[in-house]
Amino acid sequence: MNRLIKKRSGKAGMPPGTLVYVGEQKAEKVKISIIDYNETQFEEREVKIIEESFPFKDKPTVTWINIDGLHEVENIEKLGSHFGFHPLLMEDILNTDQRPKMEDYGDHIFIVLKMLRPGKNKDEIEAEQVSLIYGPNFVISFQEREGDVFNSVRDRIRKSKGRIRKVGADYLAYTLLDAIVDNYFVILEDIGEKIEDTEQRLTTNPSTETLQYIRSLKNEMIFLRKSIWPLRELVNGLERCESKLISESTCIYLRDVYDHTIQIIDTVESYRDMISGMVDIYLSSVSNKMNEVMKVLTIFASIFIPLTFIAGIYGMNFEFMPELKWPWGYFALLGFMASVGISLVVYFKRKKWL
Amino acid sequence: MNRLIKKRSGKAGMPPGTLVYVGEQKAEKVKISIIDYNETQFEEREVKIIEESFPFKDKPTVTWINIDGLHEVENIEKLGSHFGFHPLLMEDILNTDQRPKMEDYGDHIFIVLKMLRPGKNKDEIEAEQVSLIYGPNFVISFQEREGDVFNSVRDRIRKSKGRIRKVGADYLAYTLLDAIVDNYFVILEDIGEKIEDTEQRLTTNPSTETLQYIRSLKNEMIFLRKSIWPLRELVNGLERCESKLISESTCIYLRDVYDHTIQIIDTVESYRDMISGMVDIYLSSVSNKMNEVMKVLTIFASIFIPLTFIAGIYGMNFEFMPELKWPWGYFALLGFMASVGISLVVYFKRKKWL
Amino acid sequence: MNRLIKKRSGKAGMPPGTLVYVGEQKAEKVKISIIDYNETQFEEREVKIIEESFPFKDKPTVTWINIDGLHEVENIEKLGSHFGFHPLLMEDILNTDQRPKMEDYGDHIFIVLKMLRPGKNKDEIEAEQVSLIYGPNFVISFQEREGDVFNSVRDRIRKSKGRIRKVGADYLAYTLLDAIVDNYFVILEDIGEKIEDTEQRLTTNPSTETLQYIRSLKNEMIFLRKSIWPLRELVNGLERCESKLISESTCIYLRDVYDHTIQIIDTVESYRDMISGMVDIYLSSVSNKMNEVMKVLTIFASIFIPLTFIAGIYGMNFEFMPELKWPWGYFALLGFMASVGISLVVYFKRKKWL
Amino acid sequence: MNRLIKKRSGKAGMPPGTLVYVGEQKAEKVKISIIDYNETQFEEREVKIIEESFPFKDKPTVTWINIDGLHEVENIEKLGSHFGFHPLLMEDILNTDQRPKMEDYGDHIFIVLKMLRPGKNKDEIEAEQVSLIYGPNFVISFQEREGDVFNSVRDRIRKSKGRIRKVGADYLAYTLLDAIVDNYFVILEDIGEKIEDTEQRLTTNPSTETLQYIRSLKNEMIFLRKSIWPLRELVNGLERCESKLISESTCIYLRDVYDHTIQIIDTVESYRDMISGMVDIYLSSVSNKMNEVMKVLTIFASIFIPLTFIAGIYGMNFEFMPELKWPWGYFALLGFMASVGISLVVYFKRKKWL
Amino acid sequence: MNRLIKKRSGKAGMPPGTLVYVGEQKAEKVKISIIDYNETQFEEREVKIIEESFPFKDKPTVTWINIDGLHEVENIEKLGSHFGFHPLLMEDILNTDQRPKMEDYGDHIFIVLKMLRPGKNKDEIEAEQVSLIYGPNFVISFQEREGDVFNSVRDRIRKSKGRIRKVGADYLAYTLLDAIVDNYFVILEDIGEKIEDTEQRLTTNPSTETLQYIRSLKNEMIFLRKSIWPLRELVNGLERCESKLISESTCIYLRDVYDHTIQIIDTVESYRDMISGMVDIYLSSVSNKMNEVMKVLTIFASIFIPLTFIAGIYGMNFEFMPELKWPWGYFALLGFMASVGISLVVYFKRKKWL
Repeated sequence: MNRLIKKRSGKAGMPPGTLVYVGEQKAEKVKISIIDYNETQFEEREVKIIEESFPFKDKPTVTWINIDGLHEVENIEKLGSHFGFHPLLMEDILNTDQRPKMEDYGDHIFIVLKMLRPGKNKDEIEAEQVSLIYGPNFVISFQEREGDVFNSVRDRIRKSKGRIRKVGADYLAYTLLDAIVDNYFVILEDIGEKIEDTEQRLTTNPSTETLQYIRSLKNEMIFLRKSIWPLRELVNGLERCESKLISESTCIYLRDVYDHTIQIIDTVESYRDMISGMVDIYLSSVSNKMNEVMKVLTIFASIFIPLTFIAGIYGMNFEFMPELKWPWGYFALLGFMASVGISLVVYFKRKKWL
Repeated sequence: MNRLIKKRSGKAGMPPGTLVYVGEQKAEKVKISIIDYNETQFEEREVKIIEESFPFKDKPTVTWINIDGLHEVENIEKLGSHFGFHPLLMEDILNTDQRPKMEDYGDHIFIVLKMLRPGKNKDEIEAEQVSLIYGPNFVISFQEREGDVFNSVRDRIRKSKGRIRKVGADYLAYTLLDAIVDNYFVILEDIGEKIEDTEQRLTTNPSTETLQYIRSLKNEMIFLRKSIWPLRELVNGLERCESKLISESTCIYLRDVYDHTIQIIDTVESYRDMISGMVDIYLSSVSNKMNEVMKVLTIFASIFIPLTFIAGIYGMNFEFMPELKWPWGYFALLGFMASVGISLVVYFKRKKWL
Repeated sequence: MNRLIKKRSGKAGMPPGTLVYVGEQKAEKVKISIIDYNETQFEEREVKIIEESFPFKDKPTVTWINIDGLHEVENIEKLGSHFGFHPLLMEDILNTDQRPKMEDYGDHIFIVLKMLRPGKNKDEIEAEQVSLIYGPNFVISFQEREGDVFNSVRDRIRKSKGRIRKVGADYLAYTLLDAIVDNYFVILEDIGEKIEDTEQRLTTNPSTETLQYIRSLKNEMIFLRKSIWPLRELVNGLERCESKLISESTCIYLRDVYDHTIQIIDTVESYRDMISGMVDIYLSSVSNKMNEVMKVLTIFASIFIPLTFIAGIYGMNFEFMPELKWPWGYFALLGFMASVGISLVVYFKRKKWL
Repeated sequence: MNRLIKKRSGKAGMPPGTLVYVGEQKAEKVKISIIDYNETQFEEREVKIIEESFPFKDKPTVTWINIDGLHEVENIEKLGSHFGFHPLLMEDILNTDQRPKMEDYGDHIFIVLKMLRPGKNKDEIEAEQVSLIYGPNFVISFQEREGDVFNSVRDRIRKSKGRIRKVGADYLAYTLLDAIVDNYFVILEDIGEKIEDTEQRLTTNPSTETLQYIRSLKNEMIFLRKSIWPLRELVNGLERCESKLISESTCIYLRDVYDHTIQIIDTVESYRDMISGMVDIYLSSVSNKMNEVMKVLTIFASIFIPLTFIAGIYGMNFEFMPELKWPWGYFALLGFMASVGISLVVYFKRKKWL
Repeated sequence: MNRLIKKRSGKAGMPPGTLVYVGEQKAEKVKISIIDYNETQFEEREVKIIEESFPFKDKPTVTWINIDGLHEVENIEKLGSHFGFHPLLMEDILNTDQRPKMEDYGDHIFIVLKMLRPGKNKDEIEAEQVSLIYGPNFVISFQEREGDVFNSVRDRIRKSKGRIRKVGADYLAYTLLDAIVDNYFVILEDIGEKIEDTEQRLTTNPSTETLQYIRSLKNEMIFLRKSIWPLRELVNGLERCESKLISESTCIYLRDVYDHTIQIIDTVESYRDMISGMVDIYLSSVSNKMNEVMKVLTIFASIFIPLTFIAGIYGMNFEFMPELKWPWGYFALLGFMASVGISLVVYFKRKKWL
């Protein structure tokens, strides 16, 4: 199925707020992990049932609840109603082809965006939807499957590196957002290398596969663009810092994320320009190759066709053809043929076709 | 007739507010169905004459009057004057190539948009104009013909699923709007599959029909775009919730529809990009095929033309041609020809033309 | 002369406000017709000298003065100074390549726009400049020549159809504007049909004339666009209803004209998209045709060139060529040639070139 | 040197406000002419030394000082310091590749824009920078060389045509601006004719020179666009009439210039569209010509290659070839060859290649 | 590695504010030079350890600290904490693929932008990141390596040329900014010359290298655009002069830089347009060359193929071929062949293929 539109249509006709997970159903157990900390305390554990995470709602420490796997809908429903999230918010979490966006619900902010990773067949980028909800003292993150770009964040919390343990949940949310956005640079670097490779290949040995590859790069950029463009608005919404949930010191950091977002969008646009230039090069190098083939044909044909004609004349069986009787006729003709051939070669050399 | 402009011109010169139905005239009877409900009561019936629907105007319950078929103009006129709608509003309902828009008349809001469905010949999308008018306690919907995407809404009202029976006419209007917009995802998924198919076909077996098909996809996207782009402004107008007819709780749902609209527009744009990339691939694969044909010609001609010339020489009838007398002349020449042929093949192999 | 720029340059260097008619000079007499009405009275007449129209300025009834022909400059000058119009306004009326615009002079509003009609050679659209000035109780319209789209308006006034006799000069001005804009739909429908025809022709029989025709359609769209785009701003300026000359009830009607304008612009843009797609189809179908020609050449040449070579060998006159002596040599060779030919045909069939 | 960037780089590293003339150095003397007038008086003279113009600064009459030639920098410096102009303003006058702009210095307004004229080799447009400074009772204009579009303005002042002698310096500045902008119409008309010519040539006889010409037209448009686009902002800045130096009555005239500017920009854009369409036509007509050539080759080759093969067969020297003995063999074969040839011709006719 | 994205990815996962230099590590010593001046005093020296520059923070004279080389991170850290810069600001200095931007931190303003220079292989432009921080009485500039465009500025300070010694740190910051922006004109002039060269080459001798060169110019423009576009926003931010750190007199100079920036962006866009036009010319001249080759082939083949066929006929060995016995048969045939050949040549001349 086309990566650019998912099977959302299955939901058409259901009442809004109906919780249906539209991603692929998986057998694995959903993994719920909780990290709870303040400047002095730190606790990390994995829970089996979602209800174990409920007490953290009212603890003054900062709590990060991370849920890997969205296919156990009833769990997510329970969590939502305990924390008081709007049904539409819950629906958006499960709708895994959501457009990146930010929504301010007053006492919590909802962020949904795409975490990118290289796909299995290496040439495709995979996008996983990550939803973040953060309130005064908690951050809840939802991911489609295990494996993410947050390990360094976990490490920083565990080892109390940087300011993270000293500040609130808004900084944690920023850190997660920053980790996802920073990861885009890695993805873009990857694509940058592919573009370079392709440019090289274009010059040395263009083939139909090269064009197919350029096209797949182009589609990759369309996909990336669709995932990344809305980020601008999202981060801009946060960076205006109109919510009381965002402290002023975090605000400067959000401005930094905003700068990165702009830079990523700039790079995506530059790449698009470069890729579209490559199609021209490809088409031209193909037509150049054809020209070369045509030239060889022309030269062979143009030299030998007249000569063959001459040979044909003296192959005729007329009874009275005086030249045939001449003793040096044969050699004279060979000489004449050679001179015709040579002058044609000279002519083509002058025209720069040889 | 071109789907992108309808026979509106027939109306040029008439005074504004003249009610003329510009769609195709049909023999079928217009179908008027009424659903009337509140949290506890529910009534559903079909009426023969439009006047039967008039008493519902002042009932406190929520009433949904749905009219399938616009060709009985006098009925619609009566309805309009009973409910106090502006003549221009009534004209817009009958003008079935209206641009999607929203107009706030103070005590009722008028929405006109396109309901899409796959056309009969499967490759074309058909658009049916749907007009919605809603006031404090009624929603009136006008459709060009029977058959719509509202069955699930009717079901929800009948079975009192979700919040629909507990809230007002604004939520009903939202639900209808949402049903139409959700249906766009189905249509887009369809087109997405067609795009994928075409990409496959491009790689394996490009033909003139493929290009025709790409072009028809392109026109389809132009058509979709024209129907969907104005939606943005329409939903945005509603979602600002400046009318007192829209309650705050419905407002959040409208924001959801707005998100969907943006996502649909994004997808349409992505598809346009993908389709325009396919033309390049097509042109290039056609010219690649030609190259292959040319190469074969060149190789055959370039190898056999010189050899034929040599044979031509020894076919000449000169009296004095010493080689002809040599006992092994024939075989020596065959060997020479073979070596010329082989060295040309080697040359072409080196050039990577074989 | 190019339709896209008129001989305005003749005016360079004259003081602003100099009244010079830049259109083609005509021998015909200017035609001045006056329609004067209110709800109960109606008078229609044609006057010979412009001064006859002056008394209507102060009559409380609504007066519509229509002037066909701009080449009698002194008449227009007299009218202008009697009604107190600014010299630049008068200059704009005579400058018949004016960009459509609206100017509010406080006690009168000046509108200038293009009335389109099919040109004489059927494939070109002609534009005639129409200027409207309306004050509290008069509308003055200036046209380049006789013949317009206002007949239905005149009829409505004469027969008192619709609201026109009951309301003021602003409604009359709106009606004239609406008649011109409605006429654009007729023009667009025409072009729509031409586009459809061309698409058909592209598939069945593309020729150089088809491309020329596509290009002329493109230029037609450039011309239309230039005439229609500024309308948006013009109508938007009126529809904001900031002038006290526009009553509130007329305002709703202007909103309707605005909707039509947007729809016309949308259609023009869609057409442009469709036309630009056709160039691709054309180029590709031309190169497809060439491919077919090339294939035939390749097949003929590739089959017969080797065979001719073989025949050439046995046409050589060597004294010792054992095969020539074999009794069945000739038939064996014919058989060999046939098998070579057939295997080449099979090869080409496999390659799908036959 | 490329017209699109001038040798400004020579100035890099100098302190801002350094007066360096970047245009070509000329031997001719700078020409300073002064026109001084009010409604009743008029004086015109040419001065040798710049200081003679200083007394006019404080005269109540309107004074127009025009300076042709910017290479005597010290004169311009003296003028600047006498009138109290900012060093950056003075620098901009001498920097002759200035982007058109308007700057309000409170007691004087600085305008810099391009005066266009056909270049010497007819196909290139030349741009000369004109700077205007006007204060309460003076206008100072700077030009790169003699010859301008202001003769009609001078004439109007001399003969007191129009309102020019009755009003202030702001109207004079407007008149000069208007003269320059009006001249753009002349230039555009010229290009319009060239475009028409080229379109004609494209249809009748496209050659490589035609494409070169299209490209030079394209570059011309890029150049024009760069000179004209910033005008919009410039005139818009004036037309808002926020400076007390612009009287209300002049303001209406500036609105007129603004309209012209928009129209010129519209025309430039239309031309760009038309020119870019011509490249498609060119490429297609070239490939059409090639097709025709290919067809002739195919037909000749496809008809004669099989026939030559047949002749080759009967040129073989086998001892036993029964047909050679048949008395009518030769004529039968000729007949067979003719029928093969004719049927191929018929086949190609059917394919519409002949 | 692709110049358009640097190895920023190495930083993914680190806490924000971590100081890591992402450029190439160098062995050279970092060079710290200090210029301190006011109207009467002047001091210039180079320091070994960063701490020597700290006392200048509170001196009332204007101090310019310039640091060449960013690889000694701890020095920069010390400087930052002494002057009280935000960790994110410090991080941006070291992140050498920063997007140009301006940030106002209240008591100092941070500017980061690109200094361009021709690269080593002449055809590539190199960008070096320059960061400027200026407070009430200091400017600190950070560069990646030695060598810059500030020599003329140093000279002006040393020799007290212009206003620089009389005014504050804001003017110094402006001067540095201006020096960098002015340098862009030099770079653009360079590219302008390359574009001209390429245009010349396109007409005289287009080759695959020409296309490669056009593509590299295109990439160069993408790179330039990415470096220069954000400047607009940057300088615009400064030129609004909302910070109390910018005096009013400097403000006018910033407006001048803004004008230059717009002009540079205009030029970049013009160049992009010109370059994209060149690809069309290239493709067309390639296909023209091919046409010429094809024509020669067609002419040779079309003339000699029929003639060879005729010769083939009279080479046949039929026993009864009456023409062969005719005494003048041979010469008659030669004459016939000549006339066929000549009439074909005439035909091709008429078709303008010769």
